Amino acid sequence: MDEFSFINSIMPRQLQQPSLIKGIGDDAAVYKASDKSDQVVCVDTLVEGVHFRRDTLSPFQIGRKGLASNISDLAAMGATPAYYLVSLAVPETWDEKELREIYRGMEELATKYRMDLIGGDTVSTPAALVLTITVIGQVERTKARYRNAARPGDLLFLTGYAGSAAAGLELLLKRGRTATFSEEELALVKAHQEPSPHVEQGCLFADFAGRVALNDISDGVASEADEIAEASHVSIVIEADSLPFHPSVSVYPASQQLDWALYGGEDYVLLGAAAPADVKELKERFAAGKLPFFEVGRVEAGEPGVFLRQNGQLKKLEKKGYNHFQKRR
Amino acid sequence: MDEFSFINSIMPRQLQQPSLIKGIGDDAAVYKASDKSDQVVCVDTLVEGVHFRRDTLSPFQIGRKGLASNISDLAAMGATPAYYLVSLAVPETWDEKELREIYRGMEELATKYRMDLIGGDTVSTPAALVLTITVIGQVERTKARYRNAARPGDLLFLTGYAGSAAAGLELLLKRGRTATFSEEELALVKAHQEPSPHVEQGCLFADFAGRVALNDISDGVASEADEIAEASHVSIVIEADSLPFHPSVSVYPASQQLDWALYGGEDYVLLGAAAPADVKELKERFAAGKLPFFEVGRVEAGEPGVFLRQNGQLKKLEKKGYNHFQKRR
Repeated sequence: MDEFSFINSIMPRQLQQPSLIKGIGDDAAVYKASDKSDQVVCVDTLVEGVHFRRDTLSPFQIGRKGLASNISDLAAMGATPAYYLVSLAVPETWDEKELREIYRGMEELATKYRMDLIGGDTVSTPAALVLTITVIGQVERTKARYRNAARPGDLLFLTGYAGSAAAGLELLLKRGRTATFSEEELALVKAHQEPSPHVEQGCLFADFAGRVALNDISDGVASEADEIAEASHVSIVIEADSLPFHPSVSVYPASQQLDWALYGGEDYVLLGAAAPADVKELKERFAAGKLPFFEVGRVEAGEPGVFLRQNGQLKKLEKKGYNHFQKRR
Repeated sequence: MDEFSFINSIMPRQLQQPSLIKGIGDDAAVYKASDKSDQVVCVDTLVEGVHFRRDTLSPFQIGRKGLASNISDLAAMGATPAYYLVSLAVPETWDEKELREIYRGMEELATKYRMDLIGGDTVSTPAALVLTITVIGQVERTKARYRNAARPGDLLFLTGYAGSAAAGLELLLKRGRTATFSEEELALVKAHQEPSPHVEQGCLFADFAGRVALNDISDGVASEADEIAEASHVSIVIEADSLPFHPSVSVYPASQQLDWALYGGEDYVLLGAAAPADVKELKERFAAGKLPFFEVGRVEAGEPGVFLRQNGQLKKLEKKGYNHFQKRR
């Protein structure tokens, strides 16, 4: 359904990768899967005004973040990203220069992870840009990680700060992306605008011989922990005092920090669970790789659900997901 | 970015296929690629009001046709469909029952081709439903077919009628999908509403030892022939008198038939080119399989371009693609 010829001028360069054996310009891409790997594939859609706004993200950042969120889904399985396909439904309010910027944003991350752009579609739509990205990754056979692997007695951990992206979004919604931010604020703004998926960390979990349950933080710690709880049929207790915050988040009231971490989303760090002895070893491996690793709670037997322990009180967390802009209006 | 929980109630059933090794409900699907196959992947986006209208297609047919057009892209490479992922951006004007119908339409074709639904995303959008489907297929290693394989001296062929879908759309735009159609008209209406991708034919080409250039008719014979001409650096001559028409199309004026075939699109039959001796053998194989096969022109040396020979005159065809509804308003 390709309607924008410029996409062809962008694609061939990346398509000329030795890993690809396809004829350029055909509607489908052909690639050779490694015999030793399983294929991992996922798709994610971002809608203008629903998942992103032009006053908080530049076109470059929209593309970059769209691909980042998909790569994060692969990282949460322990997979290495390899290919991506991009579908754009474009209203008249966007010009070609901006669309090129969206592709350039994706390309920046793609280059970092040596991913090939192997297909796509660019069409018209009456309103609201819709960006759908499909990513394909590979993971050594049988080494993919899932949410359903948590067991009672496991420790819960995070591979990075929680709530930074939500704090950054709050700043952006208040002041707009062209405002001047302090260095401290900018760290949060960038956490929202240019997140880095935890691919290296995901691979580290895939390489680990022990059992690990894994998920990525796209919709907030509460929602992602609940996905692990539901998939593993376990109860999860998060220790409020153990949640790790970026120094720039720590200056806000504690209740605000907690809200951002639990319900803010889009941090794209990994949340996981493993047996205490394995967590000890994982911690050492992460330290050796100079990668953060935080214990944030534990897994218990019981009805699937997520609890927060704060000031000695145990509170069941709501199942509300991350609603992007709706709750803030 | 999943916002509609009902999709989960649809997906698990198909996800429980033995060919899949993934954990249900994770953001990404894991599958094992056969060691003997290459992977073929493509994505296609359909926008309400641009690529389909609710007065010409039922929700069931929208889903079915969306998947059909993607499967057709695989067929044109000689690949066998295996998996699909569905992203839906849904405005408030659609209800859950209609969305379920879209999935049911896809499922009908998926069942026919034993495809697994392995992922997707369902999100809100302010206006116009946007349906993006990613399909993954497999083709025996090195046997994928491309557009760039045509050579001077080749014969051009079609694996089915041209223009039927466009004729059906014309009827639907005039009278609406709830009108009563004669049996003859219904054949055309169904050609538009419920096309059958030529998967069996594509596999036949993949299995054939000789060289074959291949494309599918999504945007009309003229545009698809031009893609082969450009990719293969050849000139293509289509014989107007050889274009095959459905009996229900044959009753219309010749110029109208020709316009539908060349510029109508969405027939989802295959257009290809091969050496005369190979075309002879292909013809026999198609006849043995009771599948139609029509010679419609030839490939010549020269600047890339497409010509129509009609009444002894050679006319260069415009590069205009299929504009769905725009040109009809």
